[in-house]
Amino acid sequence: MLSIGYYQQVISDYFTAHSVEKEPFNLYRPIQYILSLGGKRIRPVLTLMAADVFNADCHKALPAAIAVEMFHNFSLVHDDIMDDAPLRRGNQTVHEKWDINTGILSGDAMLILAYRYFEQYEPNTFAALAKLFSKTAIEVCEGQQWDVEFESRNDVTIPEYLNMITLKTAVLVGAALKMGGIVAGASKENCDLIYDFGLNLGIAFQLQDDYLDAFGDPETFGKQVGGDIIENKKTYLYLKALEQSNDYEEQNLREWFSVQPEDNSDKIVAVKNIFKHAGADIATKKAIESYTLKAFVTLEQMDIDEDKKAVLKKFGESLMQRKV
Amino acid sequence: MLSIGYYQQVISDYFTAHSVEKEPFNLYRPIQYILSLGGKRIRPVLTLMAADVFNADCHKALPAAIAVEMFHNFSLVHDDIMDDAPLRRGNQTVHEKWDINTGILSGDAMLILAYRYFEQYEPNTFAALAKLFSKTAIEVCEGQQWDVEFESRNDVTIPEYLNMITLKTAVLVGAALKMGGIVAGASKENCDLIYDFGLNLGIAFQLQDDYLDAFGDPETFGKQVGGDIIENKKTYLYLKALEQSNDYEEQNLREWFSVQPEDNSDKIVAVKNIFKHAGADIATKKAIESYTLKAFVTLEQMDIDEDKKAVLKKFGESLMQRKV
Repeated sequence: MLSIGYYQQVISDYFTAHSVEKEPFNLYRPIQYILSLGGKRIRPVLTLMAADVFNADCHKALPAAIAVEMFHNFSLVHDDIMDDAPLRRGNQTVHEKWDINTGILSGDAMLILAYRYFEQYEPNTFAALAKLFSKTAIEVCEGQQWDVEFESRNDVTIPEYLNMITLKTAVLVGAALKMGGIVAGASKENCDLIYDFGLNLGIAFQLQDDYLDAFGDPETFGKQVGGDIIENKKTYLYLKALEQSNDYEEQNLREWFSVQPEDNSDKIVAVKNIFKHAGADIATKKAIESYTLKAFVTLEQMDIDEDKKAVLKKFGESLMQRKV
Repeated sequence: MLSIGYYQQVISDYFTAHSVEKEPFNLYRPIQYILSLGGKRIRPVLTLMAADVFNADCHKALPAAIAVEMFHNFSLVHDDIMDDAPLRRGNQTVHEKWDINTGILSGDAMLILAYRYFEQYEPNTFAALAKLFSKTAIEVCEGQQWDVEFESRNDVTIPEYLNMITLKTAVLVGAALKMGGIVAGASKENCDLIYDFGLNLGIAFQLQDDYLDAFGDPETFGKQVGGDIIENKKTYLYLKALEQSNDYEEQNLREWFSVQPEDNSDKIVAVKNIFKHAGADIATKKAIESYTLKAFVTLEQMDIDEDKKAVLKKFGESLMQRKV
């Protein structure tokens, strides 16, 4: 079994060897730019790893992995326009570096290009991959729409939130793994199980993001601690705190989340105190553990070698122990 | 052979029977809205007609036809954002009725939904349709990018312009016809020929649009005559006039195309005079005839019944005789 670093290298080598840059440059250069910003490439790594788990040469899954990464970057480019975000991975977003129209059109092209990578497989595999891809892509759009709508709603429930992060984040993790299985010719049962493994791990991953944003170590977290609090994001921590608070604390929390003060330090301290007092921190940790456990139970049901299960479990654990 | 009105009815019935509306409503309602605005549905009609030409039941081609129409509407929604257009088919554009973010995300969903219609075919047909679709879709993006870039360039050549309209408009006409051929199981030769027929007809169609915009009968044209002149659009008429003018007239035309006066009536009269004096009107008519003829020559090479050729030819002629 190969290391994550190896898979990352395979993906990075692919992008180095296959530039998408061609005319019209203002369509393709933004694509080359956003892809070159890198990132951890977790999703395509999962596709390669899954092929490996099912005893195929991981290179066979490379076109599918690249499709997944292309789609992920498409969603970043369009989401960044919608969120009016100036920075992505520490660099200018596409619509900041060029303009909104370029961001829209280059994003569209990335979505189409993603489908084209599947053309490297024979028709049956092509059809299976493209179907899974379309289903996943439309779910990601739905997740993004719910996320936008939740911003202006004050009655978001925890099941609604979990559904939103499932669509926006987790389904692509599941699909990335399943694509590796499809390419490797794994059984339908194994493909469905590795999808569920990824889905639950993806939910755990997003809840971990929510948790670290408030309670991560500022030394290792990388991003500004409290970013979600500053932006009044209705995360799992927030919704759980509302649920577990008395009327007074609930009122207090809602008030903090209705303002955006210039200096946020008081707000961050106060909100974190409410989160803790309501036990939302512990509840979130429990939810993370529960979804991670669910992922591992699914893993046990898979019909693969024990050492392959160990690899997937180790990867899951490393994701969950991250501080970044 | 069935009439265009019949095909239009089949498409319209499909949209009536299959609403895309579901939750999240703000993602799917804009899609339902833009589809409900109708239009002539020329592209999906061509897909049904092509299936018919190759002796298949046109209903077999309906999913492919709907995919084509969905894609066309996706491109309208995103192009209208880029062009800041307030109206489409006499109604508010999606980004005007909702907002830009809704236009971006609903457009993305339409592009993905288009692919999903191909899932109704078996894997080989699915793969053939999706490949042709992706190739076409990326070309349409490239065409849109060239169109945007030409706005700020003063050295656009006629071959560049023809390439732009080929990508932006004609390839989808060719692909719409070829998809009908693929679904009907037509030979590769016939599929390629009907694509070329559509491609040349599509170019002729766009040149006709350019011509009618300046020289169409205001009584029957429907749109404001001179719209392209008001917007300083570098159409075939404009580029041909530059090419065939003396230095003085060229200078004059370039000056008119560098301003946007409040009252455009003088500008429209002056520019149309330059077009005529330079013989650009006649040259455009000749180009339209030449591309139409090219389409008909391709038609002759097709291995299908003569009465089927006659149907396609009649459709081509009716498109070219339009005044709207």
